[in-house]
Amino acid sequence: MNRVLVTGGAGFIGSNVVDGLLAKRAEVVIYDNLRTGRREFLTGALAAGAELVVGDLLDRQRLSAAMAGCDTVIHLAANADVRHGLEHPRRDLEQNTVATSNVLEAMREQDVKRIAFSSTGSVYGEPEVFPTPETAPFPIQTSLYGASKLAGEGLISAYAIGYGMTAVIFRFVSILGERYTHGHVFDFWKALRQDPTRLRVLGDGRQEKSYLYVKDCVAGILRGLAEHEGQSGAFIYNLGHSETVVVDDSVSQICAALGVQPEIEKTGGQRGWIGDSPLIHLDCGRIRSLGWQPQLGIKEAIGATVTWLDANPWVLDGDTAP
Amino acid sequence: MNRVLVTGGAGFIGSNVVDGLLAKRAEVVIYDNLRTGRREFLTGALAAGAELVVGDLLDRQRLSAAMAGCDTVIHLAANADVRHGLEHPRRDLEQNTVATSNVLEAMREQDVKRIAFSSTGSVYGEPEVFPTPETAPFPIQTSLYGASKLAGEGLISAYAIGYGMTAVIFRFVSILGERYTHGHVFDFWKALRQDPTRLRVLGDGRQEKSYLYVKDCVAGILRGLAEHEGQSGAFIYNLGHSETVVVDDSVSQICAALGVQPEIEKTGGQRGWIGDSPLIHLDCGRIRSLGWQPQLGIKEAIGATVTWLDANPWVLDGDTAP
Repeated sequence: MNRVLVTGGAGFIGSNVVDGLLAKRAEVVIYDNLRTGRREFLTGALAAGAELVVGDLLDRQRLSAAMAGCDTVIHLAANADVRHGLEHPRRDLEQNTVATSNVLEAMREQDVKRIAFSSTGSVYGEPEVFPTPETAPFPIQTSLYGASKLAGEGLISAYAIGYGMTAVIFRFVSILGERYTHGHVFDFWKALRQDPTRLRVLGDGRQEKSYLYVKDCVAGILRGLAEHEGQSGAFIYNLGHSETVVVDDSVSQICAALGVQPEIEKTGGQRGWIGDSPLIHLDCGRIRSLGWQPQLGIKEAIGATVTWLDANPWVLDGDTAP
Repeated sequence: MNRVLVTGGAGFIGSNVVDGLLAKRAEVVIYDNLRTGRREFLTGALAAGAELVVGDLLDRQRLSAAMAGCDTVIHLAANADVRHGLEHPRRDLEQNTVATSNVLEAMREQDVKRIAFSSTGSVYGEPEVFPTPETAPFPIQTSLYGASKLAGEGLISAYAIGYGMTAVIFRFVSILGERYTHGHVFDFWKALRQDPTRLRVLGDGRQEKSYLYVKDCVAGILRGLAEHEGQSGAFIYNLGHSETVVVDDSVSQICAALGVQPEIEKTGGQRGWIGDSPLIHLDCGRIRSLGWQPQLGIKEAIGATVTWLDANPWVLDGDTAP
């Protein structure tokens, strides 16, 4: 990779990817609208020579211009809010599906031939096979977020096959670690800072989830991209952990790390919300067969996340989560 | 079903669905932009009391207004051109994916709780299991058309689960019969009318396809809708034939029906075009288990199609196919 455009490059995962690329001496263009991305995450990257283009994926001209001279796009920008999809059903369509189409059209205009894409384990809906492999039975979509990401996958695959691109698609579990600012651990941490005496947990607390440390995620993306250098077509990898953790246990760990003992109020039910999956556990044998494996366990990843959040309470200032 | 809106109701399959609904004494609203749909197909339906609203699915207000008072939507309008997708890659996204989102939003506005959707066997890409069941291994999309229809499926499923709708999704093989104006048999018929001495066939002629007669298709849609009356969620059915036919044989049959003996020129290769599937054969056990089965064989369906085309050469007048 010589010159890489990272959409969502100022976000949690994106800024970590940017740092990983710079460490490998790639030229990096960060494309981000800074709505949930943070300039603060780019201090090191900009000092190391990365370029920042503040722009939206729905601004097709700006996006195309930013891509000039790049050989690779790592497309991470998204509406990553799986839980509140039903409150604003067009958002996933526009920010995930239409935005992905814009990325692909800009690639065609600028003759960029390689793309990595952050999809999600949510595309498996409520799977019947655990751990769930990439070849699981064709699932029914249960969330607008999963549906919009699967639509993105489909567009990317069809472009790759139709126009001779290399597409490497990663279906993430939830990612944790430094610069994490969105999701379940964040919500618990934020709630406990506001009121350490009580905590509301969506569902029955027995939902079982898998998490992956962000630097392991970055290593997986770069490993997958390297594997398919020069190959035309679409290649799909689950990217997660062989471990899982139940919500009750991650809550206990967060509380212990914060030194609090809140009263836990559970909303009940197998699912935290409509479209929540009671069990997420991906079979990651395919990416492991490339020699990749996570360096951190889930407990360590949760620990690193809480430690980072405690050291960076300023992230709450701009928090616009619904 | 009391009052049904049929998108694409002036098209080939749509107008046959409209006639089927009227025969069951439903009130019918036809919503069609008449770009590929034909007013001529509606002569009987309009005389029988169906309403026609000329409008585009991208006109959200018109669509929503047309849906007032309906209890069911049968969503058939689409860009159905699988072969030329790579020449205008935004068309599938807009006319299939965004249009489907508009249909769903209009349903929410008008409190319509039931939808049937015409998806396609193309969502299986190049399957490895034949005949291909609904639960085939999670496929990689090979055409923009298939990708856009899968995106529509995902949206519809997530809406059904999220907002408590009934969604019945049908993955069609190619449909043949009266009012057929688009696809492989049409292209051959049209070419042979112009020049009966030669015929160009895309691919090696050994591609194996399955077809279904349009009235069998209509019966399948209505059977599937009836089965899930009042059930919340998404239900998916392949809708095809247990028979298949190779392109060489359907060409021979068409030539025999027309009484011509053209020189056949083949472009070669397993696939007629990028994204073409060398073999389409869907396992339709699921819809058959509801008691549905096709009344016509594939040869009879091809015969009925050529007979109808010969009797209705006026369809060539407005033919705007690429």
